[in-house]
Amino acid sequence: MRQTAGREAETPHVTHELARFASGIRYEDLPAGARFMARQCLLDWLGVTLAGSQEPLALMLRAEAAEEGGAPRATLFGGGARTSMGQAALVNGAAGHALDFDDVLGAMTGHPTAPVAPAALALAEGRGLDGRRVIAGIVAGIEVEARLGRVLGDSHYAKGWHATGTVGAFGAAAAAANMLGLDVEQTARALGIAGTQAAGLKSMFGTMCKPLHAGKAARNGLMAATLAERGFTSRDDVLDCVQGFTDTQTETFRPEALLEETDRFHILDTLFKYHPACYGTHATIEACLGLAENPAFDAGNVERVEVKVPMSALRMCNIPAPTTGLEAKFSLSYNVGLGLTKKATGALDIYFDENLDRPDVHAIRETVAVEGSDDLRPYTADVVVHLGNGVALRGPGDVGPPADDLDRQWEKLEGKFRALVAPLLGSRPAGALVEAVGSLDDAGDVGAALAPAAAEIG
Amino acid sequence: MRQTAGREAETPHVTHELARFASGIRYEDLPAGARFMARQCLLDWLGVTLAGSQEPLALMLRAEAAEEGGAPRATLFGGGARTSMGQAALVNGAAGHALDFDDVLGAMTGHPTAPVAPAALALAEGRGLDGRRVIAGIVAGIEVEARLGRVLGDSHYAKGWHATGTVGAFGAAAAAANMLGLDVEQTARALGIAGTQAAGLKSMFGTMCKPLHAGKAARNGLMAATLAERGFTSRDDVLDCVQGFTDTQTETFRPEALLEETDRFHILDTLFKYHPACYGTHATIEACLGLAENPAFDAGNVERVEVKVPMSALRMCNIPAPTTGLEAKFSLSYNVGLGLTKKATGALDIYFDENLDRPDVHAIRETVAVEGSDDLRPYTADVVVHLGNGVALRGPGDVGPPADDLDRQWEKLEGKFRALVAPLLGSRPAGALVEAVGSLDDAGDVGAALAPAAAEIG
Repeated sequence: MRQTAGREAETPHVTHELARFASGIRYEDLPAGARFMARQCLLDWLGVTLAGSQEPLALMLRAEAAEEGGAPRATLFGGGARTSMGQAALVNGAAGHALDFDDVLGAMTGHPTAPVAPAALALAEGRGLDGRRVIAGIVAGIEVEARLGRVLGDSHYAKGWHATGTVGAFGAAAAAANMLGLDVEQTARALGIAGTQAAGLKSMFGTMCKPLHAGKAARNGLMAATLAERGFTSRDDVLDCVQGFTDTQTETFRPEALLEETDRFHILDTLFKYHPACYGTHATIEACLGLAENPAFDAGNVERVEVKVPMSALRMCNIPAPTTGLEAKFSLSYNVGLGLTKKATGALDIYFDENLDRPDVHAIRETVAVEGSDDLRPYTADVVVHLGNGVALRGPGDVGPPADDLDRQWEKLEGKFRALVAPLLGSRPAGALVEAVGSLDDAGDVGAALAPAAAEIG
Repeated sequence: MRQTAGREAETPHVTHELARFASGIRYEDLPAGARFMARQCLLDWLGVTLAGSQEPLALMLRAEAAEEGGAPRATLFGGGARTSMGQAALVNGAAGHALDFDDVLGAMTGHPTAPVAPAALALAEGRGLDGRRVIAGIVAGIEVEARLGRVLGDSHYAKGWHATGTVGAFGAAAAAANMLGLDVEQTARALGIAGTQAAGLKSMFGTMCKPLHAGKAARNGLMAATLAERGFTSRDDVLDCVQGFTDTQTETFRPEALLEETDRFHILDTLFKYHPACYGTHATIEACLGLAENPAFDAGNVERVEVKVPMSALRMCNIPAPTTGLEAKFSLSYNVGLGLTKKATGALDIYFDENLDRPDVHAIRETVAVEGSDDLRPYTADVVVHLGNGVALRGPGDVGPPADDLDRQWEKLEGKFRALVAPLLGSRPAGALVEAVGSLDDAGDVGAALAPAAAEIG
């Protein structure tokens, strides 16, 4: 029984506070940095979604959507077709997370844009909402994800919940509720409807269900908001009540986290990936790429590699002997092999099933011992390579700090976007999409602005 | 870490055993009693679904489905329209649980048919499968729910999970997988895809989200099976693995329960409701109806009522002062008032919002003290009424034992069906539906057989 009188007085009602916050976000009041980050999140998401739209799991979901049918109101990115809002949110949501190449937010312990953007874009197309609504919706969704992640504390993710699926459902609901102009009470009910559907198991990492979680979060969150708009009832305190979401899914409930850093926009902490693997492997990859540059290093003479990562990474991405490309994205030891052989270039095909058998990568992978440490900060790693000649080289990796130069980050993201999308759509449409996302604030018709992304690929 | 070598040797792999069991069920091998119970479950479900189809929550979901659109392949019962399989499963699933008048299964701690039947019927219509496939699917689904419920133990429901939503998703997936003829490995993956979506919070009882859980379980379970058929990947051990469904959602995992009572068909334990309220209130209602018949009883002179129920009922249906009809279905004290004033007749309208203000019911409700007891079996109650004249009357209630006379039960269910459906569709169509469900084994076209239930009502 959490809601004792004393505690109520001290701590905020989380659901209501988040609903108040989400429904109060307006494009006009947002600082330029938050708007710019929303566009960066969207550009990055659109690129990985177009590339992911050709993955087998996305093709299966598109086939499923085609069998189901639906009013053609929202774009299936890279799918050459339009479908219902809900199905577009589902399929685009899964496609966006298919490559595990999408952005990351530490406070949420997950991928912030993957559940939010597909819901926001489907809703904008289906209901004719403009680009400013999309930007406000994305900010509202990601802020709710960040704040809820802090409220949940460490145990939610540690226990086995995939926050991109669970917390993401709240984010998608908050984004859609904001875009629909729902009031505080309606938004609280939207959070309730989303929260009672929130699901996703971390044990599914390495299977097609992991991206499915992002798609389901997008679809469920969107439906939660449209149902709340229709007057569908729900508890309006799903995050606070006994047998609610936090009561069942975390043991480290921290409502007081809402009172911390209230004037910051957590979207500014978003981290972007430049390797298409689980972000938990990135610090290790960067450490290995650095070690591979050391003149004393010799990839053919590696005897043993010791990798130290935060404890949280062990159950996230420690598949020791991956047999598929999806599994390889969650394998620290495989990525050590990629990094030390300088094959971790950011290219997609290094995680293709048919490319896993490289003997040099395999030889190194087999020497790797991974250890968890309570002393390491998230998204850091400590790698020591022991060579056959007795030399030991040590390299730290840290991919935790967010960018302080947003213009430079946009350039990097534009490069990643063009590298992913130009081979699929051509250079000119890729450039047009960069331009469209960059000027989304002025788009009255979001579907028309992003029309080049609606083409059928392949 | 559960899967130690020693334990693996002793206990079955739950996911695989359930998949093997579900995929092995064939109509031809089923005992007559199991087939008959499947038809009874279906008849009861169809009646409460048609009645529930007129509830506000069902109308909202139909409006949502209409906005989404969909290939017209499956019937919206009572909705006068056809829609996609997934949307039909969702909307019919929610409608079937809208009145809380549908069947109950103790082993599952939930409502077995509500998630299973809508998935099975939508799939049969969409894929052109006959009545025998539906019967086999329903048996497979309900057996998986019962066996999984036993494996989960008490803590799953006690913690706050609505088993009709969570366990129900597995049931719907098992039913659909059976009907699609998936093999053991495909069925195990279908259970995985369902398990990673399984959700539903008990705190939502008394809101529209409770019936939504049944609809979501139906839709998610159906999609899990059709995705598995397409080759979508998932863990094939979601019930056994670290950070899987049981690891995150129960603390009383009992894999050995699969080895108990393996030769029984648990569908025979299904309990049917004759009052449209939470089954946790039924023993109390029956006790009060009995007390009201006592010559010494005087409804106008009730001073105090003591109700003792199993502990499990306290968080299930103990809303002390309901303000809506939905809440009244989950209020022991309100139902004491209905029972002692002989108003608990099974009629729907006693739980209509506008009928909650009866002074005699209210007067008694305010005198009720509810207490939980560890000594009482599920679905029992012990009621003591203290009258103003010093007399105390005691009445026990027990709605736990399943029927041993299935023919008599069919008669009662036919009476309930006709009482619910004749006012909506007319006596002749109601009778035709009883006939159609009674002879479902011979239906080649399930949609045609149930056509009278496709009419638009109201």
